[in-house]
Amino acid sequence: MERIAVYPGSFDPVTNGHIDIIERGLNLFDKIIVAILYNPAKKSMFSVEERKKMLKESLANFDNVEVDSFSGLLVDYARMRNAKAILRGMRAVSDFEYEFQLALMNRRLDKKIQTVFLITGLRWIFISSSIIKDAAKFGGNIDGLVPETVKLHLHKKFRQEAE
Amino acid sequence: MERIAVYPGSFDPVTNGHIDIIERGLNLFDKIIVAILYNPAKKSMFSVEERKKMLKESLANFDNVEVDSFSGLLVDYARMRNAKAILRGMRAVSDFEYEFQLALMNRRLDKKIQTVFLITGLRWIFISSSIIKDAAKFGGNIDGLVPETVKLHLHKKFRQEAE
Amino acid sequence: MERIAVYPGSFDPVTNGHIDIIERGLNLFDKIIVAILYNPAKKSMFSVEERKKMLKESLANFDNVEVDSFSGLLVDYARMRNAKAILRGMRAVSDFEYEFQLALMNRRLDKKIQTVFLITGLRWIFISSSIIKDAAKFGGNIDGLVPETVKLHLHKKFRQEAE
Amino acid sequence: MERIAVYPGSFDPVTNGHIDIIERGLNLFDKIIVAILYNPAKKSMFSVEERKKMLKESLANFDNVEVDSFSGLLVDYARMRNAKAILRGMRAVSDFEYEFQLALMNRRLDKKIQTVFLITGLRWIFISSSIIKDAAKFGGNIDGLVPETVKLHLHKKFRQEAE
Amino acid sequence: MERIAVYPGSFDPVTNGHIDIIERGLNLFDKIIVAILYNPAKKSMFSVEERKKMLKESLANFDNVEVDSFSGLLVDYARMRNAKAILRGMRAVSDFEYEFQLALMNRRLDKKIQTVFLITGLRWIFISSSIIKDAAKFGGNIDGLVPETVKLHLHKKFRQEAE
Amino acid sequence: MERIAVYPGSFDPVTNGHIDIIERGLNLFDKIIVAILYNPAKKSMFSVEERKKMLKESLANFDNVEVDSFSGLLVDYARMRNAKAILRGMRAVSDFEYEFQLALMNRRLDKKIQTVFLITGLRWIFISSSIIKDAAKFGGNIDGLVPETVKLHLHKKFRQEAE
Repeated sequence: MERIAVYPGSFDPVTNGHIDIIERGLNLFDKIIVAILYNPAKKSMFSVEERKKMLKESLANFDNVEVDSFSGLLVDYARMRNAKAILRGMRAVSDFEYEFQLALMNRRLDKKIQTVFLITGLRWIFISSSIIKDAAKFGGNIDGLVPETVKLHLHKKFRQEAE
Repeated sequence: MERIAVYPGSFDPVTNGHIDIIERGLNLFDKIIVAILYNPAKKSMFSVEERKKMLKESLANFDNVEVDSFSGLLVDYARMRNAKAILRGMRAVSDFEYEFQLALMNRRLDKKIQTVFLITGLRWIFISSSIIKDAAKFGGNIDGLVPETVKLHLHKKFRQEAE
Repeated sequence: MERIAVYPGSFDPVTNGHIDIIERGLNLFDKIIVAILYNPAKKSMFSVEERKKMLKESLANFDNVEVDSFSGLLVDYARMRNAKAILRGMRAVSDFEYEFQLALMNRRLDKKIQTVFLITGLRWIFISSSIIKDAAKFGGNIDGLVPETVKLHLHKKFRQEAE
Repeated sequence: MERIAVYPGSFDPVTNGHIDIIERGLNLFDKIIVAILYNPAKKSMFSVEERKKMLKESLANFDNVEVDSFSGLLVDYARMRNAKAILRGMRAVSDFEYEFQLALMNRRLDKKIQTVFLITGLRWIFISSSIIKDAAKFGGNIDGLVPETVKLHLHKKFRQEAE
Repeated sequence: MERIAVYPGSFDPVTNGHIDIIERGLNLFDKIIVAILYNPAKKSMFSVEERKKMLKESLANFDNVEVDSFSGLLVDYARMRNAKAILRGMRAVSDFEYEFQLALMNRRLDKKIQTVFLITGLRWIFISSSIIKDAAKFGGNIDGLVPETVKLHLHKKFRQEAE
Repeated sequence: MERIAVYPGSFDPVTNGHIDIIERGLNLFDKIIVAILYNPAKKSMFSVEERKKMLKESLANFDNVEVDSFSGLLVDYARMRNAKAILRGMRAVSDFEYEFQLALMNRRLDKKIQTVFLITGLRWIFISSSIIKDAAKFGGNIDGLVPETVKLHLHKKFRQEAE
């Protein structure tokens, strides 16, 4: 039987830390579905379509990865996609507690889906989408922290704002 | 002398974790005043009146519990009500630091009022009002996590929104 | 009914942080039993008898405090003494997790006994019996951190070792 | 290709929390090797042979689980056994940091082996081999916290000590 | 060569905890530039001009302190001012992780600038600008927690709102 | 006036993480005294003389660094050496709390000496003397984690033990 994992997130935008988790996850699962959570209540920099486009371009070299979006309950989405695992990356203690509570709640909602944690590579431990956006906004060098396509999109976005 | 404790919170809405803390607290105090903090600056799902109603229905079987609301400084309210203790539940490390700072500030404001911490039962360790609301919003099963009356109010609320 | 709490610990030796917790606890309970855990497997600086003597001298001015020692399970001891609560002080996040696990285990062993946490006063937040012993050993000034009797015992102890 | 994970530990003795992690892991891997770390420098209650026996009896109903022991570097052992993952359970923030450092060090020693974290079920969050041993020593009720065979071994061990 | 440190923050308003860090920092550096981060996206109680005025009045007795404001990247500002260090105060574990990530990101942006951490004095461990504002809003006593000038400004601000 | 900092530790043995902190510290201080704490009660792998020798060889290329050892109270040693600061490296949350308590105690013992924290470079975040020793013991590759001289000493030590 095929082992499928869902890797949920905002990906606003995707960073090299996310790519690293996906790459590690592909050693454990036959297929990974990268699932953008569509949450109309939360303000985002990029639209779901833009985020999907950047993810697809960044992941073009990987087989067995699918990019999708969903709204509603994560466990419902995972069940619908026949996933047996939810994949999560961890960078820090503060991530841990929130992830812990979420994993326990998701387990209560569906006992058959496991939450699996991988630890982000050392080089990505200090980056997050929001730190990247803050740096890019003021012209900080983000080479090597995001895929090339994301860098271009960020520059375009901030140029528009400046105009 | 009667030992009174104030149990402050948003209770938006009350969960079984809150009920558990109240039940434990009644072993230590003669009376517990459940005090809804009215904070006009913070957006809530339920009005103070709705929250009060749900609390009263959920606590109907307990003696020595009073439901009230307040605004302003907690220590002023506690002093006015002749309470000698502020009751707080703890679930996680991240709760701890914030609670710690608050307890030290409250102690500075009134040395005669103690902050007393009880630990939430294992079954309630991963639930919070906001996780419950997220789950209920998309039809996740919240049986056993909130009092029956809260479940009905949540379903009514989300049905209204959907219409 | 009398409200009794057990305040367990090594008290090797008692510090002003412990005294502070006892004083706060007396606002909540009718009686506090300070219970030295006798653990032959753990090396201590002072014998149980010495620790008991220092506690009694330090607490001479408090009514409703009893000093005792016990071995075996804490919940068994608490039940035997008709205590309805176990009193614990907290100073830091690292205390929290261990205390949390212990409180959950003790609850499993006896559901009728509550663990109650109080937060140590700001002045005692950085002291522990072992930091005090380290400082005293090399002649560091510990005035105001321990009761007078403990200071004398520590000096006597280190003078003996030096001879 | 067969997906093998190594689940290393002291298992002194195995608890129901360990069994829970193994059961969850079997949803993700084709085979799990439970590997007792033999560390002559660390004092243990049970010998490696006793620990192996208890593990085998506790896991008799699971297919695809092997019980083994090793000394030396974990990554060397994992490589030798053709494992692509190291399986670890997490219960608390304090576990997290140590596990984190270990995972980063192991990754440095062998980049091809992933450390995979699963979160212990709510019921096992407060138990550890050492808390179990402390409770069992003084006759505390450990039903449901360890496999039946471990309970018998613990009682036998403490009866011998008492004689 | 002159050793200059930048001490960045919102200072909305400055507290005695900030003053304490500046005073300690002056033992280590020849000059400290207190730099208000101007962030139009974040709502503040006081304008940058008001914050600057309060800082200047509070720091009137210190030599070698300059009050300034900046927008954009902190490392760019520090480089422009010939600072070799960024000064930060720490009060709690939750501060730590965020500070840690920021320090690593800033180091990536400019390797020649060190982030230096000092620990806030015990008396200031529980205060923050936001806790002060909450207390002041409802007439809580904030004597000794903020400089005299800040107290006056806070009272004026809340009187205006009440009118 | 010359700015001197003491950098205390066990250095059993020195790692590249320690060297990194010293190098960063030299940007802030005129001189750093690396001070090995001699604690007869704590078992060490290398003697104070061996540790001193390895430190001196590893730091041969740095000016303004002195290697020394001390026993007794750190603040007494720092005062004697005319140091105005104690330098400490931090890697993790668990370091933080202990360091915090120590810094507060040291401040109480001598108000004129500041504890200054620097954050270890990303590459050293997961290494500690004990993890290095564990890896070296079983032939794990520690290239790049310790100075060359330490590597040789470790190999010699473990060869002796094996014989």
